[in-house]
Formats: sequence, structure tokens, C-alpha cells
Amino acid sequence: MYSVNVRDHFMIAHSFRGEVFGPAQRLHGATYVVDVTFKRGELDDDGVVVDIGRATAEVSTILDAFRYRNLDEEPSFGGKNTSTEVLAREIFDRVARAVQEGKLGAGARGLAAMCVTLRESHVAWGSYEGQL
Amino acid sequence: MYSVNVRDHFMIAHSFRGEVFGPAQRLHGATYVVDVTFKRGELDDDGVVVDIGRATAEVSTILDAFRYRNLDEEPSFGGKNTSTEVLAREIFDRVARAVQEGKLGAGARGLAAMCVTLRESHVAWGSYEGQL
Amino acid sequence: MYSVNVRDHFMIAHSFRGEVFGPAQRLHGATYVVDVTFKRGELDDDGVVVDIGRATAEVSTILDAFRYRNLDEEPSFGGKNTSTEVLAREIFDRVARAVQEGKLGAGARGLAAMCVTLRESHVAWGSYEGQL
Amino acid sequence: MYSVNVRDHFMIAHSFRGEVFGPAQRLHGATYVVDVTFKRGELDDDGVVVDIGRATAEVSTILDAFRYRNLDEEPSFGGKNTSTEVLAREIFDRVARAVQEGKLGAGARGLAAMCVTLRESHVAWGSYEGQL
Amino acid sequence: MYSVNVRDHFMIAHSFRGEVFGPAQRLHGATYVVDVTFKRGELDDDGVVVDIGRATAEVSTILDAFRYRNLDEEPSFGGKNTSTEVLAREIFDRVARAVQEGKLGAGARGLAAMCVTLRESHVAWGSYEGQL
Amino acid sequence: MYSVNVRDHFMIAHSFRGEVFGPAQRLHGATYVVDVTFKRGELDDDGVVVDIGRATAEVSTILDAFRYRNLDEEPSFGGKNTSTEVLAREIFDRVARAVQEGKLGAGARGLAAMCVTLRESHVAWGSYEGQL
Repeated sequence: MYSVNVRDHFMIAHSFRGEVFGPAQRLHGATYVVDVTFKRGELDDDGVVVDIGRATAEVSTILDAFRYRNLDEEPSFGGKNTSTEVLAREIFDRVARAVQEGKLGAGARGLAAMCVTLRESHVAWGSYEGQL
Repeated sequence: MYSVNVRDHFMIAHSFRGEVFGPAQRLHGATYVVDVTFKRGELDDDGVVVDIGRATAEVSTILDAFRYRNLDEEPSFGGKNTSTEVLAREIFDRVARAVQEGKLGAGARGLAAMCVTLRESHVAWGSYEGQL
Repeated sequence: MYSVNVRDHFMIAHSFRGEVFGPAQRLHGATYVVDVTFKRGELDDDGVVVDIGRATAEVSTILDAFRYRNLDEEPSFGGKNTSTEVLAREIFDRVARAVQEGKLGAGARGLAAMCVTLRESHVAWGSYEGQL
Repeated sequence: MYSVNVRDHFMIAHSFRGEVFGPAQRLHGATYVVDVTFKRGELDDDGVVVDIGRATAEVSTILDAFRYRNLDEEPSFGGKNTSTEVLAREIFDRVARAVQEGKLGAGARGLAAMCVTLRESHVAWGSYEGQL
Repeated sequence: MYSVNVRDHFMIAHSFRGEVFGPAQRLHGATYVVDVTFKRGELDDDGVVVDIGRATAEVSTILDAFRYRNLDEEPSFGGKNTSTEVLAREIFDRVARAVQEGKLGAGARGLAAMCVTLRESHVAWGSYEGQL
Repeated sequence: MYSVNVRDHFMIAHSFRGEVFGPAQRLHGATYVVDVTFKRGELDDDGVVVDIGRATAEVSTILDAFRYRNLDEEPSFGGKNTSTEVLAREIFDRVARAVQEGKLGAGARGLAAMCVTLRESHVAWGSYEGQL
């Protein structure tokens, strides 16, 4: 299995609901360093997993919808807790859709799986991995 | 599959038995930076893999049994080589037991798998991954 | 010159005033990984720059005043932009005061200088360095 | 599943063929930081995944064939694009052969799988993972 | 003294002249992860060291002149060894000129010093630091 | 001022004397990732700060005296606490002597200063910097 990873980041404000979150129930924020890993069994005709330039540009465009925002006010989350895991899944779904719509190139339709990891500090991260 | 990772570290002395270990047969030591990765197919009712606060606290308590010790004198290893791999497995087993005893919260019983990684330098690490 | 560094982190929400900040004028947030570096010409009687245990605990206590907060509502900033540089200086001043009040131990009064660095992503950081 | 990882690096020149590569069609170069991860279900008689000293030495010997070279002129690539993914696979195959020839010790024949990751910058990497 | 750092990278081919360079006399290449650190005694009117957005954009533009090139053929180096140190100095001079020409904003003229660091692998880096 | 840095590591056992060290008074150990930074005002005739190959080899030879040892039994420390700061200074002195003895090449005699940093975990490090 071949993999290729691109990295970007975004900074947001949010708060959590539920006693389990303790002081994180207050409005606070985070920098998320995002790793999107693309996977497939065989390389495409150019000898790559994905066109890394287009992948980087498309991931950046998708993250633009999150950059410098208060996620508590984003209708797409409808009041759901925007935990690191939930955000990783949301970004996974959006990149997966872009792959299916051909935005990463025709060759990217051969991708088998993807993993999105969000690093929120030097000691904690969350991720979502799934088939494409 | 969703994942969440917490990081901690501990510093120990030990020595290895077996010619293959060369100069590491002498009494020496190591800093191990520990990553514990929790995995599950679906998030719990709070929208997380595990209560990261409780996970961090429980991992820290488990590592207290290793901190600032000479592992050659720890009865729990019974003279076994405390290689990075063996230590990763030992910590895996102890965190797994804590999960089963409910110490990471009721929701943590839904965890599917776990991976424990011990980084011993900027160029080497070992890990153990298994089902829960 | 000897140095010792301890690391911690905190997560906050804030916004900036001034056109130069572009989209960062919106309410957003950040994770700051904080490095506090203590410096002195000669070691103290225990052969260290500072009691690293006390330094770690004191820095953590000082950062508690920032953790999981919306800095726009913190009276201590009085509407000032809480840029990375400004936050580094604020933390520098608070740790410097703790040193002078003896909270890091009597030996710490021999400290000559200090640097506080705040890493806000994998590509950007700010710091403030000064004499003690 | 147990894993052990060793790290090394090499620096090469190369160019790519294909419009998709844009300016990378020009002769340029890269530093690749190489992680070779060895995996197996049970530890060997010494309680390790692999003799880490021999693994480090053998990986270094294998990378000697790439160090400080212009890959466009290496006959073993026969004009194929030496993308990060292709290089990861090539190194995988060479280390796998060394394992089979007993160069990492008799115990290493019990290895189950391997992953070779090449980090080309702070924001991008590629890898190849397979059974042994 | 306040500092702010921005990070970027570029990938080039080159070779060195002089026996001291051993195998690096052959045509090879490198990824350089570039840190440009801006320093000043007091913050500007916006409470920052430099407009980080403009600094990032300007550094990127300056590095465009190096990206995906064979430095042996760049007339600006005139056959000089493009060691990590020499490249750090060259980039320092170009960013310094941009500061003086006002390309980082009027406030940037108050900058006191700058340091350019080029990381060429996980084990080696070089830098040039000077007054502005 | 130009700088060049080389990195290596070593693993040792030791214990500390003094109540301030708490549980670190027990025999334990550490991995130290070592950065040696060489500095000078002008480059040598080859356009470098120091012959990086010779510097790497010489630092490695100096660290051989520490690798896989119990520092409590090393006569050169004579019962002194081998804190991170003390070790950084000891390594500084040994590399400085090697520079003066010409072991890093004739050009290295033009070095102006040096900094030795020992990273003992992902959250703590110590260093010693001085003139040559």
C-alpha cells in the first residue's frame, strides 16, 4: 500500500457541551495542524499516489471554510460538539467528496483510502481513517 | 476508524542480557516519550473516542510505576529484557486493564483497539498494537 | 551561559483589531505551545539553572490564567491585541515576578535572563527575551 | 503487532517527466529522511522485533547506493520518475531482500511486514507498506 | 527583544567543489526548511514584530528564485559553493533588501535584526544572523 | 554570525543527590539528543563554518565516552550531580579541546563560539554556550 501525506493548518474558536469537558466548556480555541494521507494499492500512470500540488491546493480550499472562525456559529455543525475527532471526520468527508468530483484529477479516482489527522498540541491529536 | 492520542514520558535505568545488545548490556538508561493511541469505529455519546482528560490522567498514573526506576530491579519484569517493544506491550496491557475496569469512563468500554509507542531517541522507536 | 527550558501549552479564543490582520479580525483561536527558557552565568549550589520541578509547576500555574479562555474578555489585556508577541511578553512578566517573589526557590534569584516562546503552528512562532 | 523503527537520511538530485509535475520537471533535489518500520506478531528469542544495531547498519548500507547522486543517471530507475512513492517502494524491496538473505540476523526472518516512509519536507511525505 | 518566525521550504540540486566535501562533490540535492526570524526591541503600532502575512508572502516570493533549480547554473552564485551557510546569508541579504524597500510594510523598517536558518535534515542545519 | 549544527544522541544511567531532585534521587536514566552548534563571524576558505563531516565524527567520538554508561561510576564526574546543564558544559569543554587540538581541521580554529544543547524529553532541555 502506497501513501502520500500533505500538511496544512487552521485556527478556530469553539466550546464544548457536556460535563466531561470541564473547563473546555468555556469559549476557547485551537490551532489544528492537519495531515491528509492518501492511500492506494498501485500508483497512477505518473508514478504517484495523487498529484501532490492539486491535493495541497484542494485541502487548502476545503480548510478555508474553517479558518479564523467560531465553530459554535457554523450551521454545518448544528450545535454538535466540534471535537478533534468530529472535525477530522468532517474534513475527511469533504476531501472524499472532492476526490469523487474529480477535483484532485482523474487519477485520484483510484485512491483506496484516506486518513485525516488533526494535531491540537505537542501532546494530543485525533484522526479519522476510512475507505474511499 | 477514529483515533485519539495522548503523550507522556518517563526516564529509567536498565541493562540488557544477550550478546546481540553489545554495549547496551551495561547498565544505562533511556527517556521514553510515550504515545497511547485509542481507536474505535464510532464515537461515544459525547462525540469523542475517549475522555481525553481521564485518559491522560490514567496513563500518567500507570507510568508512575516506571518513573525514575532501575527496571533491572523491578520484580514485574522477572529478569526479562525490558526492550522498547517489551515495555510498549507491558504499558498496553496495563492501560487495557484500566479500560476494562472502567477507569477511563463507561464510554471507554466501546474502544476497539489501542497502540502504545515508545520513542527512545530522534531516530528510533518501538510500539505494540492490539485489539481491546 | 547555561540554559534550561520547560514546555507547556494552552488553548484560547481571541480576535484582532486592525486591517493588517485580515480574516484574523474575526473571533478565532489558537493552541500555544509555550517554551520558557531560564538562563544564568553560573549554576546554583545543586548544579542546576533552576529547580525544574518547581519551574514546571509555576509555569503551569501561571498559564492556568489563560487556559480555555476568550482573551477578548480578559480585563488584564484591556482591549490590547493579544498577538503572539504580546502574549509572550505578558507570560515573561508573570514568570519574572514569580522568580522575584521566590516561587521558583531561593536559588532562582540568581537567574540572569529568560526567553518565552509561543509556537502557534508548525510554521510560526513568536517570543520575548529579556534580562531578569 | 510489534513494531520497531530506525531513521536515516540521504540527499539526491533528480527531475520528473510529465506536465503534472510543473516546475519539478526541472533538475532539482531533495533530502529524504527515511523511516524503516519492521513489524511482527511475536518477538524473537531476544525479546525484540529485530536487532536494531544490524537493522540500522543494513539500512545505512542500502541508502549508500542513493547518497549524493543524480537519480536521473541511475540505471536501476531506467528513466522512471523517482517520486517519493517510487523511492519508498525501491528501498522497501532492497531492505526486504536483505531480510531474506539473513543480513539482519536469523531472527529477522520472522518479520511479518515493513513500512518505508520518506519525509521530503516539514509538510509532505510518502510511504510504501507491504508484507514480508 | 521580541521575535517572530515564519517557515517555508525549497528543493534544489547542487554540487560542491573542494576535497573536504567528499561525496558531496557529486551532483546531488537538498530540501531546505527555511526559518526567517525577525527581531526588534519594541513592537509596532499594531502590537506585532512584523505583519506576518506580508512576511510569509515576501519570503515565499524570494524563495521562488531558488525553488526546483540547479544552483550550479545560477549566475548569482558565480561558481561559489552553495553551502547551507552561504544560502542562509544569501536569503538574509534578499529579505533585508525587501525590508528596506518597504515590501514588508512601513512598520517593518523598525526591525533590529534577523536570523535565517536552513534545516537540511533531521540532524543538521546552518544559519546566518545579523543586524538590519 | 554564521552557525552550523550537528545532532547525535546517547543513553545513560545516573542518580542525583539533593532533596530538590525528589524521585530523581533514585537510580534512573535518560536519552540525551545532543545538538552542537558552531559559530563564527566569517566563513572559512571552503565557504563553511566547519567541516560538517569531521565535526559529526568528532562529536560522535566524544559521546562514545558517555554511551551506555552509569555516570554515577564515571570518575571524571567525581560524585558531582550530572544534571543536563553539567553534562552540556562537560561536552562543550571536550569539543572545545578537540577544536583547539585541530581535530576538526585547521579552519575550525577560526570558530568564535559554541552552544551544546541536551534534549532530555519532548518538554525539557538544557544547554551551555560560550566563547572559543
